[in-house]
Amino acid sequence: MEERLRRVHDNAAEHSRTPRPDKLSLGCRLFERWYPTCHSAARVQPRVPVLVKMVSTSLFLFLLAMLANGYAADPLASWNDTASKNSLIAFVERVTKTGSPDFVPAPERIATFDNDGTLWAEQPMYFQFLFAIDRAKALAPQHPEWQTNEPFASVIKGDMKGLAAAGVKGMLELTEATHSGLTTEEFDQAVKDWLATAKHPKSGRRYTEMVYQPMLEVLTYLRGNGFKTFIVSGGGVDFIRAFAEKTYGIPPEQVIGSSGKLKFEMRDGKAGIMKLTEVDFIDDKDGKPIGIQSHIGRHPIAAFGNSDGDLQMLQWTTAGAGARFALLVHHDDAEREWAYDRTSQIGKLDKAWDEATAKGWTVVSMKADWKTIFPK
Amino acid sequence: MEERLRRVHDNAAEHSRTPRPDKLSLGCRLFERWYPTCHSAARVQPRVPVLVKMVSTSLFLFLLAMLANGYAADPLASWNDTASKNSLIAFVERVTKTGSPDFVPAPERIATFDNDGTLWAEQPMYFQFLFAIDRAKALAPQHPEWQTNEPFASVIKGDMKGLAAAGVKGMLELTEATHSGLTTEEFDQAVKDWLATAKHPKSGRRYTEMVYQPMLEVLTYLRGNGFKTFIVSGGGVDFIRAFAEKTYGIPPEQVIGSSGKLKFEMRDGKAGIMKLTEVDFIDDKDGKPIGIQSHIGRHPIAAFGNSDGDLQMLQWTTAGAGARFALLVHHDDAEREWAYDRTSQIGKLDKAWDEATAKGWTVVSMKADWKTIFPK
Repeated sequence: MEERLRRVHDNAAEHSRTPRPDKLSLGCRLFERWYPTCHSAARVQPRVPVLVKMVSTSLFLFLLAMLANGYAADPLASWNDTASKNSLIAFVERVTKTGSPDFVPAPERIATFDNDGTLWAEQPMYFQFLFAIDRAKALAPQHPEWQTNEPFASVIKGDMKGLAAAGVKGMLELTEATHSGLTTEEFDQAVKDWLATAKHPKSGRRYTEMVYQPMLEVLTYLRGNGFKTFIVSGGGVDFIRAFAEKTYGIPPEQVIGSSGKLKFEMRDGKAGIMKLTEVDFIDDKDGKPIGIQSHIGRHPIAAFGNSDGDLQMLQWTTAGAGARFALLVHHDDAEREWAYDRTSQIGKLDKAWDEATAKGWTVVSMKADWKTIFPK
Repeated sequence: MEERLRRVHDNAAEHSRTPRPDKLSLGCRLFERWYPTCHSAARVQPRVPVLVKMVSTSLFLFLLAMLANGYAADPLASWNDTASKNSLIAFVERVTKTGSPDFVPAPERIATFDNDGTLWAEQPMYFQFLFAIDRAKALAPQHPEWQTNEPFASVIKGDMKGLAAAGVKGMLELTEATHSGLTTEEFDQAVKDWLATAKHPKSGRRYTEMVYQPMLEVLTYLRGNGFKTFIVSGGGVDFIRAFAEKTYGIPPEQVIGSSGKLKFEMRDGKAGIMKLTEVDFIDDKDGKPIGIQSHIGRHPIAAFGNSDGDLQMLQWTTAGAGARFALLVHHDDAEREWAYDRTSQIGKLDKAWDEATAKGWTVVSMKADWKTIFPK
């Protein structure tokens, strides 16, 4: 969609730079890819090109007007025309139609999105851990003790099996050590620098190019219908804020995530906020509805997730009166992405899947429901 | 302003209901309060009322157009034309003017406001404590133990001296007991019910009518210039959210405050969030910049407070590069409101005042800078 708009914009810019074509050739130019004989026809039969010109100019203006009004194309163009897509559209129409019994005023149209596995990929491990690993390697010269202490020693040696052996405790320790001891602004820059250069080990893409095109369309579609879109992620809030605005159009104040303790400091008369080692809040499972209440203070009416970590957010979202929407992304496309669910270490989808089935929530099959996975 | 707009609207509605006046009398009607001889003059000198009609109709249409465009009046009409008002306008013009070296893109125009003493009054004590006292009295029958336990016994007897003797610890205990053991939605309703009926002991007004008219104008003025306005208060976040949207036009997700721990629960298959007794976060002093970072994740460029509890928020706001604005409301109007500063138990303004003087922050004299205090 953005790409298409950019092309139209580029075309328009190109036209404005090139000398103004004579009146006859403008229509022909627009159509010459499909009607290469237009120019010669124009010269031979003067009455036909006038008609061509009129029709093509009208069509051109009509298309331009449609583009300008956002009717250029299906807003969910990367979705196949299946039940998943239709359930979302039906919900949005119910809550936005004035006079409908399910109408919800715009300020109350709150939609919450998990990040890892819902808006972008999460394999072979959460991207934030890949950042922590790269950052630990970069900081190693300042920490000679890491050469012998686990999990750092394994990370420095590139021994992923050794890191895996350190388990959740090891990953937490690695995250804490690489996400503290600097100001929030310094950390923000460190994440931005990493995202600008690091590449995904399997796809070779930048991590911000591993976002799901169909979900980008959902974000834009909901915002176009007066929704406020929030991220509610188990990932670190400062990590996600470093790219959410540019990548998803979600400003920092609409990102909720896990966080470490912070400390306000005056150094040489200058104020700063330091990131401390201690964990403050884990925005996962029960933490998600609590994070939502703490930050938003309003009941979401739509929620999007992909794993058991999102179950409580979906339960809370669907608990209110009126129309509610809950969606789970099921990773079942080993060819174009990854296939994993009930027994996966990352993004386990088990209890939430059962509850979705029982309650009629929308379960997206990436394989069947999505035309494309990543932006082209 | 709203009152004036309503009157114009009422007038317009009235005009549409009454039979259409003849052409000569429309101009006269509009002016008959000031020119009662208009009708007779019209009959005697036909050329004069045509002129009156033309001028008055033009003027009427001009005023209507101005109203419709929001240029009806000074957006800061309740402010005297002093340095305080001019410093705010100068700042807003600097950061909103395209091409200005101090231009700030709209999404980064974050303004934070303290609540007690900055947006509404805080004497004879924080209004939230008055709510806690009323709620303790209402809940007393369910708590026979309160008849003998302090500070509850004093509250039930209406012994304010006894309550004062219980000190900060007593107030905290009272607040915890009256702000927990119910869901967030039940608490929200309890606050709304109280605000709908309770009256301020001195003014006899509803508490939501004890807001500062000049500050309401600042909120509207900033939002009209692309700012996002946030409350950053030491008061309880759930308490403020119950009225902030209706009273200030600030939605719940833009209210940051102190909070207690929350618990997500499923009861009979229905999800709810319980308010627990334990304090989770105190959004005061050092807590304010931390609350801002945690909830907004972006550096404010303007901050408004009235006490030493706001100092760190103002330090953090003014720490960034580019144009920044910091304002303190000084309560120096014993006649129209209250006068208190360096030695006050509530809303103490001492260190922050000194720093404001040293750094050239704006210090508002309620007496000299504000034409009116409360909405009429």
